[in-house]
Amino acid sequence: MTGQDRIPVTVIGLGSMGRALAGAFIRAGHRTTVWNRTAAKAAPLVAEGAVHEQDIAEAVAASPLVVACLTTYDATIGALEPAAGVLEGRALVTLNSGSPAQARRAAAWAAGLGARHLGGAIKNVPSAVGAADTLLYYGGDRSVFDEFEPVLRVLGGDTVHLGDDPDLAALYEMAVGGTLLPALVGFFQGAAALQARGLEAASMVRFSVKWFQMIESVLPVLAEEIDEGDYGSPLSSVNTFLAGAAHDDGFGEEAGLDVEWHRPFHDLLRRAVEDGHGEHSIAAVTEVLKRPAAAG
Amino acid sequence: MTGQDRIPVTVIGLGSMGRALAGAFIRAGHRTTVWNRTAAKAAPLVAEGAVHEQDIAEAVAASPLVVACLTTYDATIGALEPAAGVLEGRALVTLNSGSPAQARRAAAWAAGLGARHLGGAIKNVPSAVGAADTLLYYGGDRSVFDEFEPVLRVLGGDTVHLGDDPDLAALYEMAVGGTLLPALVGFFQGAAALQARGLEAASMVRFSVKWFQMIESVLPVLAEEIDEGDYGSPLSSVNTFLAGAAHDDGFGEEAGLDVEWHRPFHDLLRRAVEDGHGEHSIAAVTEVLKRPAAAG
Repeated sequence: MTGQDRIPVTVIGLGSMGRALAGAFIRAGHRTTVWNRTAAKAAPLVAEGAVHEQDIAEAVAASPLVVACLTTYDATIGALEPAAGVLEGRALVTLNSGSPAQARRAAAWAAGLGARHLGGAIKNVPSAVGAADTLLYYGGDRSVFDEFEPVLRVLGGDTVHLGDDPDLAALYEMAVGGTLLPALVGFFQGAAALQARGLEAASMVRFSVKWFQMIESVLPVLAEEIDEGDYGSPLSSVNTFLAGAAHDDGFGEEAGLDVEWHRPFHDLLRRAVEDGHGEHSIAAVTEVLKRPAAAG
Repeated sequence: MTGQDRIPVTVIGLGSMGRALAGAFIRAGHRTTVWNRTAAKAAPLVAEGAVHEQDIAEAVAASPLVVACLTTYDATIGALEPAAGVLEGRALVTLNSGSPAQARRAAAWAAGLGARHLGGAIKNVPSAVGAADTLLYYGGDRSVFDEFEPVLRVLGGDTVHLGDDPDLAALYEMAVGGTLLPALVGFFQGAAALQARGLEAASMVRFSVKWFQMIESVLPVLAEEIDEGDYGSPLSSVNTFLAGAAHDDGFGEEAGLDVEWHRPFHDLLRRAVEDGHGEHSIAAVTEVLKRPAAAG
């Protein structure tokens, strides 16, 4: 433990993730000041030792490091406006979802007030905050990261500075996070199909986990194909996926499911074939995505 | 090692997966007979010790256990027709993709010839064949599974009998496999977005792997919600996903990507909200999938 570990921290926004962040700081022994628009959410944290400020300017003024965890960049800027006069020189770390463009806008707003800014993202659920392998990544002012890294590491042991651009976390957040809803809907469809046969969704979980592990195992190969632009030695070809896609309708019909959400995927496969990628790696679909449909 | 381990095996179909299967049997010391429509594919296996039969009836007659790994059930039946007279009493294990309905049709065909049938699926890539944690699951004649389990385990240590219905592997294959293409397209989109910023797709792989691991960690919870039909205590709500979906267009525009494939997902989220699931778990989308759009 160094003196660094005891730096006072302010947490703005006490949704489920904000509460988890504040709790981690408290347990690590940091003097933790909290603020939330609905003050009642602060009570359990105060019971754990947090200081609650009703006035956001007071909350910000209490610490050299301010971690804002609201829903969007607009909500973050909106909430922090009354504290604009006290942000100068402080380190402001934003942890919310949003687009890279919104992240740049928030960074410019913070810079205009003289705040030193890091835009971050936490790639996990609230219950994972504080775990050794929980990932948080940040883009923006490297000096903020270097100065506060030990404090930020309290939130997750896998803490990364992506680079100086303030929108890099938002960029990676969207790049990486784009698999979530599609993967979940695929899982929900499977669950519904099993239920239609009187089987439990729980019975597929261990198989689904293995399947995701298989997907993880091929990502380095697919990424290399994409980076090289060379799709000629496929693990699995576009045509193989297209052959499999032929079963989607029958599968949905048998289980009485809505399988309309598959259509755009089938379209992407067909467009890849039209572009000459039929016998190429499925990763060649990346090239199709690079051409907006209107131009295709 | 028991006598069981040395049971002669025939492998029908020498695509990349069939070759991997035959290779595993050969290395495990089984007398392995192989057949393929294009005979040249057998040569490397013959060099390893396989017996190659040009005549499929001879190939089938060579072993009590016949493993067919062709592309579809139709292809499997078509290839095996000339061997119909010698299938009686043999164990026929099919490992190919297809719908549950096609699996039942193939099982009926095999039963009509007096063959004992297991319909299986291998949930992995050819290079994983033979590994201790590689999963293969089977549905159908339990006595075949019990008799040949040690031989089948040569193909992957995680070898499971799902039940007596011959289409269960096809059912789980589609239920579990439905996450693959959507997840990959999400990854490809992320890769394309990084490339648009001059960054490498490889730079996101380790983050994507963590993200998939996070998804894996929530599957048991989501499955329980679905099995209970209780979506009232969400880890993440439909509304939270809908708020995130609002960024998809801007993200695509900034990187010049085709994001049309997101639309059906947004529609599913909106339909879930219309059904009163806005503040419920994202798993409530399962209920929307159970109502074909035409009836919705």
